[in-house]
Amino acid sequence: MKVQGEHYRTIWIHPDDLKVVQIIDQRDLPHRFVVEDLVTTGEVAAAIKDMHVRGAGLIGATAGYGMYLAAVTAPAQTELVAHLEAQGAELKATRPTAVNLAWAVDRQLAAVRSAAGRDEQLAAARRCADEIADEDAEFCRRLGEHGVSLIEAISKRKAGAPVNILTHCNAGWLAFVDYGSATAPIYAAFDRGIKVHVWVDETRPRNQGARLTAWELGQHGVPHTVIPDNVGGHLMQHQLVDLVITGTDRTTHTGDVGNKIGTYLKALAAKDNDVPFYVALPSSTFDWEIEDGVAEIPIEQRGGDEVRYARGWLDDQIQEVRLTPADSPAANYAFDVTPRRLITGLITERGICRADKDAIGELYPEHRR
Amino acid sequence: MKVQGEHYRTIWIHPDDLKVVQIIDQRDLPHRFVVEDLVTTGEVAAAIKDMHVRGAGLIGATAGYGMYLAAVTAPAQTELVAHLEAQGAELKATRPTAVNLAWAVDRQLAAVRSAAGRDEQLAAARRCADEIADEDAEFCRRLGEHGVSLIEAISKRKAGAPVNILTHCNAGWLAFVDYGSATAPIYAAFDRGIKVHVWVDETRPRNQGARLTAWELGQHGVPHTVIPDNVGGHLMQHQLVDLVITGTDRTTHTGDVGNKIGTYLKALAAKDNDVPFYVALPSSTFDWEIEDGVAEIPIEQRGGDEVRYARGWLDDQIQEVRLTPADSPAANYAFDVTPRRLITGLITERGICRADKDAIGELYPEHRR
Repeated sequence: MKVQGEHYRTIWIHPDDLKVVQIIDQRDLPHRFVVEDLVTTGEVAAAIKDMHVRGAGLIGATAGYGMYLAAVTAPAQTELVAHLEAQGAELKATRPTAVNLAWAVDRQLAAVRSAAGRDEQLAAARRCADEIADEDAEFCRRLGEHGVSLIEAISKRKAGAPVNILTHCNAGWLAFVDYGSATAPIYAAFDRGIKVHVWVDETRPRNQGARLTAWELGQHGVPHTVIPDNVGGHLMQHQLVDLVITGTDRTTHTGDVGNKIGTYLKALAAKDNDVPFYVALPSSTFDWEIEDGVAEIPIEQRGGDEVRYARGWLDDQIQEVRLTPADSPAANYAFDVTPRRLITGLITERGICRADKDAIGELYPEHRR
Repeated sequence: MKVQGEHYRTIWIHPDDLKVVQIIDQRDLPHRFVVEDLVTTGEVAAAIKDMHVRGAGLIGATAGYGMYLAAVTAPAQTELVAHLEAQGAELKATRPTAVNLAWAVDRQLAAVRSAAGRDEQLAAARRCADEIADEDAEFCRRLGEHGVSLIEAISKRKAGAPVNILTHCNAGWLAFVDYGSATAPIYAAFDRGIKVHVWVDETRPRNQGARLTAWELGQHGVPHTVIPDNVGGHLMQHQLVDLVITGTDRTTHTGDVGNKIGTYLKALAAKDNDVPFYVALPSSTFDWEIEDGVAEIPIEQRGGDEVRYARGWLDDQIQEVRLTPADSPAANYAFDVTPRRLITGLITERGICRADKDAIGELYPEHRR
């Protein structure tokens, strides 16, 4: 998508130097736009661990390019596959719960193992890294093509008046390689000239909405308004939201959606006000094992200081202010689970379906159990 | 309630100087505890307007003492009632939507008008100011006595394990003269030795929960945990909330509750998880005219910068950091309305009742229409 009028992905090989991978350091957004050079697998591991990059799709792509750099920088005398296995283990350890990370590392190992001779192996690693990234972008593009039909229909019903879409957290192109999941239908609609306006939940405590979603929508020129997480229900009561689209961190094959904390509250409000509530996901986010999301999806608890402090821009630098009394504890549950009964449908790269086992199984018969 | 082990109200006459009224300047909480002297009606007006004090009950009490100071400081040659009428008009203009403000000013005017002679009038103004404050404290104390029965019953059912109560915004003693509304049953339970733990919604964008409710609970020794506004639904799904109690800014005589933005989302989650949802209010907060809260209660919109910035403690002073991109707009709806169908009951100074016209009318027959 666009940054200052120019097209960017979230990760790419340096155009003038094949041994350098470049990323947008997301820690500084929206206050500073910093492109970072990564040269070693260690630097890639640190970028994932310290969240210069985040989001399921982008973590996978970064791991893919990390393995590519591991191959490029391997000492001439080492056996490449053994070297990549060791570096891959290091990458996998950075964020052990990220499904796409292990998947990307293993895909790289398989690609390099199946190639013969060092030059072939290096070429395979590069090809595989690009494939992982391209596939992520393509899946997001396709789900955007499917999802845009929902926005188009509402736009027609409203005789071209802006379609108001509410989203939570950042399920934008910054969380993937391009397009994003929840944002893909929105960008597709905007690029076709359909009038849209996005209500951006700020998404406390880490403010991925206020920081990242607002920034990427603004850079692409999409009209949007940042709101506190408390506001969505009121907006829906007063017909100011036509459609909710969120992303997901893990969706059970039965249709329950694990996503950023607070998603469940918005789904309740959507149900209460007959507002369609959709979840957008590339199929890599499906969990084909778990049956009951609320009971079985583990919910990460993070440090309380993310709640006790707010991080932002002051005096030309990023600083933190304490919001609470010095001795008040805080709890920080990172995700919640929205039961399928509150979800109107899922937007995937293969089409839109109901959030239930049968409909998901029909779209992905190879996973049906 | 207690501050650093000592009993405080939110407003009082200086113990050594009858011509001085003292308040806690709430703008600096929880970071600094500042007691401010008010001597003139102009200072009182500024304290209300600039929100050194806030909250329905406290605004009324402050206006009452403001009129007392107007009487005390009136030049000897002026006609006191005319002087107070002029000063009262100035006070009323500070926050025109605050119902209790106009009510307190008019009550003072009536009290002074009914007294004969200057000394009598001065005594009447002082008596009336104290009465308004005492009545506010007494109504809150009584609703605490009624509400504590709910907590006691849950405590028994849980065999003495801590009762987890979720609250939103600050409906604490800082919003009244003492005890608070939503907090009154909690303080009553704590003081009786019933084990309680309070989940404190931080309440973006102005963070009255993280700043004020957390501070007053901490000062009184009540166990509590600050949470982002996104978290309550998840907690309720996992049986971590036994009871929700909020305050209200305006409750229709039909049972709809206008309160801080985000209250509606918590009420939806409570309903979805069979968690009792109560609203605590002294009867001064009832609106005896309006029938349909969602359609008729006007919702104040405040400046977007309260959303775009977070205010907190850094380098020994209160500072603000910007959270959003420099050019992203923000919307700031201050209140929402929770429909009566989501409310288990109302806790008033006369007892607990269902949130509907008949039950409210039975408790307040003098207002029944």
